[in-house]
Amino acid sequence: MTSPSPRPLRVGLIGHGFMGAAHSHAWRTAHRFFDLPLTPELRTLAGRSRETLTASAERYGFASVTTRWQDVVEDPEIDLVDICTPGDTHREIALAALAAGKHVLCEKPLANSVAEAEEMADAARAASARGVRSLCGFSYRRTPALAFARRLVEEGFVGDLRQVRAQYLQDWLADADAPMTWRLEKETAGSGALGDIGAHVVDLVQWITGTDIESVSGTLATVVPTRPAAGAMQGLGGKGDAAGERREVTVDDTALFSVRLADGVLGSFEATRMAQGRKNAMRIELHGSDGAIAFDFERMNELETYDATAPAGRQGFTRVLTTEPEHPYAAAWWPTGHGLGYEHTFTHEIADLVRAIGEGTDPSPSFDEALRVQRVLAAVEASHADDSRWTAVGPTPSTASTTEETAR
Amino acid sequence: MTSPSPRPLRVGLIGHGFMGAAHSHAWRTAHRFFDLPLTPELRTLAGRSRETLTASAERYGFASVTTRWQDVVEDPEIDLVDICTPGDTHREIALAALAAGKHVLCEKPLANSVAEAEEMADAARAASARGVRSLCGFSYRRTPALAFARRLVEEGFVGDLRQVRAQYLQDWLADADAPMTWRLEKETAGSGALGDIGAHVVDLVQWITGTDIESVSGTLATVVPTRPAAGAMQGLGGKGDAAGERREVTVDDTALFSVRLADGVLGSFEATRMAQGRKNAMRIELHGSDGAIAFDFERMNELETYDATAPAGRQGFTRVLTTEPEHPYAAAWWPTGHGLGYEHTFTHEIADLVRAIGEGTDPSPSFDEALRVQRVLAAVEASHADDSRWTAVGPTPSTASTTEETAR
Amino acid sequence: MTSPSPRPLRVGLIGHGFMGAAHSHAWRTAHRFFDLPLTPELRTLAGRSRETLTASAERYGFASVTTRWQDVVEDPEIDLVDICTPGDTHREIALAALAAGKHVLCEKPLANSVAEAEEMADAARAASARGVRSLCGFSYRRTPALAFARRLVEEGFVGDLRQVRAQYLQDWLADADAPMTWRLEKETAGSGALGDIGAHVVDLVQWITGTDIESVSGTLATVVPTRPAAGAMQGLGGKGDAAGERREVTVDDTALFSVRLADGVLGSFEATRMAQGRKNAMRIELHGSDGAIAFDFERMNELETYDATAPAGRQGFTRVLTTEPEHPYAAAWWPTGHGLGYEHTFTHEIADLVRAIGEGTDPSPSFDEALRVQRVLAAVEASHADDSRWTAVGPTPSTASTTEETAR
Amino acid sequence: MTSPSPRPLRVGLIGHGFMGAAHSHAWRTAHRFFDLPLTPELRTLAGRSRETLTASAERYGFASVTTRWQDVVEDPEIDLVDICTPGDTHREIALAALAAGKHVLCEKPLANSVAEAEEMADAARAASARGVRSLCGFSYRRTPALAFARRLVEEGFVGDLRQVRAQYLQDWLADADAPMTWRLEKETAGSGALGDIGAHVVDLVQWITGTDIESVSGTLATVVPTRPAAGAMQGLGGKGDAAGERREVTVDDTALFSVRLADGVLGSFEATRMAQGRKNAMRIELHGSDGAIAFDFERMNELETYDATAPAGRQGFTRVLTTEPEHPYAAAWWPTGHGLGYEHTFTHEIADLVRAIGEGTDPSPSFDEALRVQRVLAAVEASHADDSRWTAVGPTPSTASTTEETAR
Repeated sequence: MTSPSPRPLRVGLIGHGFMGAAHSHAWRTAHRFFDLPLTPELRTLAGRSRETLTASAERYGFASVTTRWQDVVEDPEIDLVDICTPGDTHREIALAALAAGKHVLCEKPLANSVAEAEEMADAARAASARGVRSLCGFSYRRTPALAFARRLVEEGFVGDLRQVRAQYLQDWLADADAPMTWRLEKETAGSGALGDIGAHVVDLVQWITGTDIESVSGTLATVVPTRPAAGAMQGLGGKGDAAGERREVTVDDTALFSVRLADGVLGSFEATRMAQGRKNAMRIELHGSDGAIAFDFERMNELETYDATAPAGRQGFTRVLTTEPEHPYAAAWWPTGHGLGYEHTFTHEIADLVRAIGEGTDPSPSFDEALRVQRVLAAVEASHADDSRWTAVGPTPSTASTTEETAR
Repeated sequence: MTSPSPRPLRVGLIGHGFMGAAHSHAWRTAHRFFDLPLTPELRTLAGRSRETLTASAERYGFASVTTRWQDVVEDPEIDLVDICTPGDTHREIALAALAAGKHVLCEKPLANSVAEAEEMADAARAASARGVRSLCGFSYRRTPALAFARRLVEEGFVGDLRQVRAQYLQDWLADADAPMTWRLEKETAGSGALGDIGAHVVDLVQWITGTDIESVSGTLATVVPTRPAAGAMQGLGGKGDAAGERREVTVDDTALFSVRLADGVLGSFEATRMAQGRKNAMRIELHGSDGAIAFDFERMNELETYDATAPAGRQGFTRVLTTEPEHPYAAAWWPTGHGLGYEHTFTHEIADLVRAIGEGTDPSPSFDEALRVQRVLAAVEASHADDSRWTAVGPTPSTASTTEETAR
Repeated sequence: MTSPSPRPLRVGLIGHGFMGAAHSHAWRTAHRFFDLPLTPELRTLAGRSRETLTASAERYGFASVTTRWQDVVEDPEIDLVDICTPGDTHREIALAALAAGKHVLCEKPLANSVAEAEEMADAARAASARGVRSLCGFSYRRTPALAFARRLVEEGFVGDLRQVRAQYLQDWLADADAPMTWRLEKETAGSGALGDIGAHVVDLVQWITGTDIESVSGTLATVVPTRPAAGAMQGLGGKGDAAGERREVTVDDTALFSVRLADGVLGSFEATRMAQGRKNAMRIELHGSDGAIAFDFERMNELETYDATAPAGRQGFTRVLTTEPEHPYAAAWWPTGHGLGYEHTFTHEIADLVRAIGEGTDPSPSFDEALRVQRVLAAVEASHADDSRWTAVGPTPSTASTTEETAR
Repeated sequence: MTSPSPRPLRVGLIGHGFMGAAHSHAWRTAHRFFDLPLTPELRTLAGRSRETLTASAERYGFASVTTRWQDVVEDPEIDLVDICTPGDTHREIALAALAAGKHVLCEKPLANSVAEAEEMADAARAASARGVRSLCGFSYRRTPALAFARRLVEEGFVGDLRQVRAQYLQDWLADADAPMTWRLEKETAGSGALGDIGAHVVDLVQWITGTDIESVSGTLATVVPTRPAAGAMQGLGGKGDAAGERREVTVDDTALFSVRLADGVLGSFEATRMAQGRKNAMRIELHGSDGAIAFDFERMNELETYDATAPAGRQGFTRVLTTEPEHPYAAAWWPTGHGLGYEHTFTHEIADLVRAIGEGTDPSPSFDEALRVQRVLAAVEASHADDSRWTAVGPTPSTASTTEETAR
């Protein structure tokens, strides 16, 4: 077996929670289904606790571990830093990695504030001039059905856009006695449903329609304002025990906002963790003069399309199983009708990223695009603070541009 | 055949468009499927053009016609006046009919302004004291699935309400060259998507949840601001012909609004005629601490229910075919699984109305309830005019109360 | 109101159970939504018990009653005899009515045996020569979605037929303690699931595809062989009481059969009352070289169509809401997206029948077509008795032909 | 990183087509999501053509290659032989591997004849006594929704079984000009739709219900009897070119069969590659006295369940997203609502197999269970040859037993 192996792409990954597991699976898998110019190598896993870290590294397939993220950034043997830590650490790590000439994959949200995000976008733009690439992990873009939706819009399938509807519905907070977590504290999480899941649909709508959100009118709410402290749960009493201490939830659990896109088109957005019964219902509906598109991540292998130019009487929503060779990413996998899962979005993201690095182009979503999302979220918060008045989204740097390659 | 017939209820119907056809079918049909204390008799049909009127009367089964609505109101042989004319005439006819001691069924919206609606509600309350009944035709309440949804909420199925989502989506204006009609002119129609279809979901959410909307933040838009004049279409050029005259659309085609219900619960509302592909998608979703409910009128014989108290692993949305004897109105019709259609909502409405008249109780939705809807719509318009700021809904008369009987 | 009324069509209806209610609603309603050359008049209702008969007649709108069906057949004031009695009486009544020169609408199944059905078909053919019309009530043909399916097949939408799947699934016998009824006794009912509901899908598949079933291989079963006697239920004990008498079920509750259509195309058929959870799931799927069609009566306002000639990547099942003006029967009713119900199939049937009578043409399904269905059912029974060997369906009279008009 | 690694399980895989890709992904992935007693190591990949083999081995992650399968079987460094070759080679390889003391994973169908399968099952039983394990790759059993369906049936959810419906629908042969392949020649493929996809639903129904199929009445068909030779396609003419040579299809493209399970329960089965529009519609429906279950692989993350013991009016099919921690295999993966894909069925299969090997128990489906499937298929073919008469399924060896562990 002497065939010339492609060059390695040596990866250091920081953070080993849910996202660390998803990313490392993608790093192990991408080159086994896609033709890539570089072969990922899992070099170092960084995390805070050495014990669990070692077990994670073994399970994920990393060669070494460290409890100092700086080790990863400084290691000359590492080509790319993959940041899977909470948002409040993104800026520091990403700036250091870019300065050290490492390519960066940074989980979303890019940062916990617009100011941080601006700094990071500036650094990424500068690094790009030196051939250093960065990508922010809005991985849902790599859902085949959604990438296909974007292609349809580009091809004019929906005609002039008339109406947008975007929801990200989960239900893990519908129970008033679901316990407190750091995700529900403003100082650590930065934001609630808005920043965590609302960010995804903001990014997706802008990306699929190719149109920016220009202004917003928004409202945030915390429907259940206190929750049992985690300790109270385990220690003293049971769920909802009167004796149990309850702590204040300091982020939103529900965000509603209307948006204005170009040409007066309105969009209705919603992000909530209170939608009892909806597990991961990321739903997007676009209506245009010539057609419509509807998607729900709970059925991620399907895209519904409506062709208003079809003969009268034959129109209707068509349930396209996006598992055909013609669909983005699908040809790399199984025969038609054999669906993909959630983790594939990450595998596709890695494949596109590795290809861009190999080809010397900037991958998408760039940090500039991620900054754009951040500005929209900030505008929603500002509108909420101003009695839901319409609020303009801050400007996008004029130098922002995106090149994008879809893995074939 | 000498069995003692029940007393007749002699009906005069004013207006013979789409609603006139639907109402007269219901008047002819209700007593043939429900046991009613009075038997409807179609006495007089009133309309403006004698020719088409006579043909309509024959088709609908009326014994006589008149081009003066006053004839109906003044006729001592008529017991009930059914008002199916455009909204700007409701006040005058309804006040006259109530003054003349006629029961009144008035199509929605109750009126074109809150002031008119208040006057009508006052008159209806006063008439009730004299045994004269009134009902506003929010007929969708009589959809079996929605009446069942209300019953489930009353029984505590969803627990504490957490989240509401209500949409009324149609697409007949998605085509920018769909011609101008009187429905798109403010002076005649009063309102656009908001008042015509948004009113239904406002009424339904308040009725099903038993909770009032307290404040709103709303936005209206007219995405396609001009349309071919009807004459231009027929006369000079074809669809979208450059030579064709276009006229200004002076009502909204899209309305988005957030609402606050009691206890901080937020709701997201949308009414639009621009939702390409959606024909009559009146969708309502309620999420609570213990369960959820979802409905789409395009599948009107189904209600989706989610029981969060079911054993873990067995939870999911249950598609209930609301055609069982246990479901509201369903026992009067066909065997289980044999669905009902749009017109049945009117037949049920008439059945409930006739029963209330026979039993001497006030039917629902009362004019007070309809006024409540009007106030919400007015608040949406006020919020829109005030840059979408949160706007309180005006007070409901304290004497408002509803008694309701469901036809069995 | 002196406009010249169309001539009346005076109707005598025999039988006042479930079908009597459905038919009389259709007779009252058809001319109010469709332009018909004759106006139905409900003259006489015939039934066995005078008390319930009088109440039914009043409720259904008949002018007179009789306990002798012969009165209806002999009445010179009656133009059409509508036979809604059990199958064992069809032959005698229909032959008498046709001999008396009355048009005949006969509920399905046409008769309880092929021999009876042949006699009736002969009589109907002879009567047709004298201008007397007959129709057998396979009313599901008038479901807009299914009439549209037939049109699509005629237009070549599916190309060469490859595969057929037809199921009629109900569940009212899944409970082993559902009580005995006359429908489960061979001497009265003739057949079980096969003849009652299987007949519908046999007729529909032949009609939609325009192709005859040539041979069958079938199996019948009675999964629950005994059931509580009705008396036992009410009298002695409760449901499933050990003391309760159980009686033998002498008809099938499940029928499975494969069929061969022309050109070697196979079809899979199933009719059962044991399909727990399925209420009225009459499902038909057709697959061809160029497309496919799928239908389920539980969603009767929808037809799913698959266009294999659409561009690769855009193919999928399209959910057509068959409520557009282009769809059969739909223009007579409500705006798009406002669905129809079960009873509309009868109204459409009556409209088509009255038009055929007015125009002097033979309506469809003719007695010859109904005889064809009967032959298929008989072949299934013969195959079952012969260890499920393939069994040819008996010949169709060469004179059989159908003219069909769809009410507009 | 000195934590003691679990023992390796050294794998040799024979065959590197579609199944080789799926299996090697599973071997690479299983221990990264499931706690396993042994760690799979991809040692040798065997195939016929050295060039493509080397590329495959690199892509799949094997350390070495060979063009002689015997090298794998004889290699003392290999613990398990994974057979992904066509069915006609299974017997020889499996017997050699078992004789050499290797654990065996053999793709389905176990063999191309009952006689071969019997020999293999005998060998597997004998090997088991020596601690050597075997499993036949009916991987669909490891779909979480289907494993959950089996659990529900075991727990009595459906009560007494009343009715079974099983379909495996694909459409890649609906086009009459789809080219000839070795899969359509009897000498190489052994069987058509029946053996390839029908086998899956036979196995699943027996496994989920815990009930054997006792007799069958079946029909096979080849709706499109000739197809363009592959050469004709590429060389001379285009698709359907008159000049192009067409060759005879010698296997079935459609199989219909009825089955009898214990207690007179009937089942309706269908396997076809002619079902235009259905891509991988493996559908199973079970109806019982107390409930029902429905599944379609095109929505593999959903199971529909019907609880007939729920309160009247609240019954309906519940769409369970089988992504909860309570569902089989799901806890190893992502948060609720984040679906899995086709390949996960293989990963789960490998996890269960490795666990059984580590624990010294026999995994399931055993070769005996696979033999049982083979007997059913043979009975269908025998019935078809005997004019579809009911035909008994041959006996199962009395020593057959299954122990099964579900990976947690």
